[in-house]
Amino acid sequence: MTLRRNSKPLRIGGLTIGGSSPIRIQSMTKTDTRDVAATINQIRRLEEYGCEIIRCAVPDMEAAEALGVIKRSIHIPLIADIHFDYRLALASLKAGVDGLRLNPGNLRNLEQIAAVVQAAKERETPIRIGVNAGSLPPSFEGDSGPQRMVAAAKEQINFLEALDFDLIKVSLKAFDIPQTIAAYRAIAQDTPYPLHLGITEAGLPFEGSIRSALGIGILLWEGIGDTIRVSLTADPVLEVQAGYEILKCLNLREYGPTLVSCPTCGRAEIDLLPIADEVRGHLKGIRKPLKVALCACVVNGPGEARCADVGLAGGKRKGAIFRKGKVVKVTDEDKLAEALREEIDQI
Amino acid sequence: MTLRRNSKPLRIGGLTIGGSSPIRIQSMTKTDTRDVAATINQIRRLEEYGCEIIRCAVPDMEAAEALGVIKRSIHIPLIADIHFDYRLALASLKAGVDGLRLNPGNLRNLEQIAAVVQAAKERETPIRIGVNAGSLPPSFEGDSGPQRMVAAAKEQINFLEALDFDLIKVSLKAFDIPQTIAAYRAIAQDTPYPLHLGITEAGLPFEGSIRSALGIGILLWEGIGDTIRVSLTADPVLEVQAGYEILKCLNLREYGPTLVSCPTCGRAEIDLLPIADEVRGHLKGIRKPLKVALCACVVNGPGEARCADVGLAGGKRKGAIFRKGKVVKVTDEDKLAEALREEIDQI
Repeated sequence: MTLRRNSKPLRIGGLTIGGSSPIRIQSMTKTDTRDVAATINQIRRLEEYGCEIIRCAVPDMEAAEALGVIKRSIHIPLIADIHFDYRLALASLKAGVDGLRLNPGNLRNLEQIAAVVQAAKERETPIRIGVNAGSLPPSFEGDSGPQRMVAAAKEQINFLEALDFDLIKVSLKAFDIPQTIAAYRAIAQDTPYPLHLGITEAGLPFEGSIRSALGIGILLWEGIGDTIRVSLTADPVLEVQAGYEILKCLNLREYGPTLVSCPTCGRAEIDLLPIADEVRGHLKGIRKPLKVALCACVVNGPGEARCADVGLAGGKRKGAIFRKGKVVKVTDEDKLAEALREEIDQI
Repeated sequence: MTLRRNSKPLRIGGLTIGGSSPIRIQSMTKTDTRDVAATINQIRRLEEYGCEIIRCAVPDMEAAEALGVIKRSIHIPLIADIHFDYRLALASLKAGVDGLRLNPGNLRNLEQIAAVVQAAKERETPIRIGVNAGSLPPSFEGDSGPQRMVAAAKEQINFLEALDFDLIKVSLKAFDIPQTIAAYRAIAQDTPYPLHLGITEAGLPFEGSIRSALGIGILLWEGIGDTIRVSLTADPVLEVQAGYEILKCLNLREYGPTLVSCPTCGRAEIDLLPIADEVRGHLKGIRKPLKVALCACVVNGPGEARCADVGLAGGKRKGAIFRKGKVVKVTDEDKLAEALREEIDQI
């Protein structure tokens, strides 16, 4: 893995993003922001799953004003997502948000942007320059996708810097992976600011997590990226879970249990799928790092179990349960899930 | 993306792997190989989803003999997966398989391996040297994970080459992503043979696809890899679908429809989730490349729709349907799924 890019650390609420701080996981609410109770409930649920920053859409003034109550009822930094109307940014700052996301594709009036920057500066509130391939400013329509995204971001960065404002974070999101990677690589070389990674409109959970893992993961592997948001057409809890999976797979962060489980094949001597499902359900309540390895036969079973906290290697309608690499029990197939649950609880 | 590594092309049945041939998608049956009817059914289902090579476990002689009937009843190359007993490899060759996978971790007797290589040579049948981190030969226990895997593969490669056999494919599978990448990078430089990529015991579909996308995807991005197998504790059809998603996301292959769909947020003016689910269901029967983009609001909706064959941008309880970037219909929310289905069918 390439050494992590040395970005300029940025404070967002009580959290640091960039520099040597952990890659932060964020999400966005899918409730109507004006429905304060529903929005707070969703954010609290996301907090339980480890979401570290939350963003809310601000389609109108009522939504901007709702952010005040929301902010006081949650425990993680709150970002206002602003498109089209700079007054929504001003109202969100007034409501006390910890950060703004501005889309340079649909906020183009320099005087209006200057007013927002001035208000953000007074409150020391950071701004993300959030470029999307689907909503680029018209002046950049000629160039290739990545060039257009980078140009849109740089134009806005230059404008903010000219106003002596540097509490900046940048994102350049697209659906296309090679384009996204090209754009982030370019901006990573050109600016010192922390980068927020994401793949826009990545889709439903199955395809969307694969696409997000590839786009976000290849960039992180190249040392690029300080905070990530997986976008899925689904419950936002899945976005947070997918985010942690990406970081865990690249050994960038530890978070909760890891379930190693074999695909099974014609060699399987136990029916592993229901056991794996049951163990996964049992692990849901656990937040500590814990590695559980389930294999349906003896080919890799003992080897994988040796590297896990709790392991299972299947045999003929039986299974050996391992703890820290040592067999602690051999039991019949129908009692394996229970035996695994017991071992997990003891650790 | 790095230029693809120039591997030595290899024929497996009617298919070429490596060189400039497309990255091939493979899977493994999860039925009891001795249950010939169930195994053939599963393979035919996998063929429908685009599986290009199939592997079956060969735990005993009855399974080896079953491969003959299976081979004659399917349309894609059949590989016998051999562990522990070289006689199962000989019997599988006799049954007419298109390839063997040998695990150097549990097939150690050189005379026995030589007998298999001799029989494979007579039939011009390729052998995959399939190393797994969970079942390495004991002699390499001292080194680090990637070094051990590479050493186990190279020992076997050297032995096969000394027998004047070069119909070789290599895999070095582990659960850990950085270890897997380090191992494949090393073997890619050391040998000319095509590489089969995979992450072992990657887990249940959600985590397993993310882990596989990262491990396989980062290597493909670096130009390494000629055929891939996603291992999931699930229906093998999901393995094939995940494989194609990975290749599609990296623009390495086209296969079937692509659904761009926004995560929705507090700005959404239509309920996109059920529409996205319905459209996805409708796209299942389609094998041609087709891009459908669904956005719940006007921020990125028109922009994304412009790049898609069929698009939707949501508005107030209504939506605009796009075809090749042009609005063809504006309709109420409850009729959007139907209108999208119609547009898709017309294309």
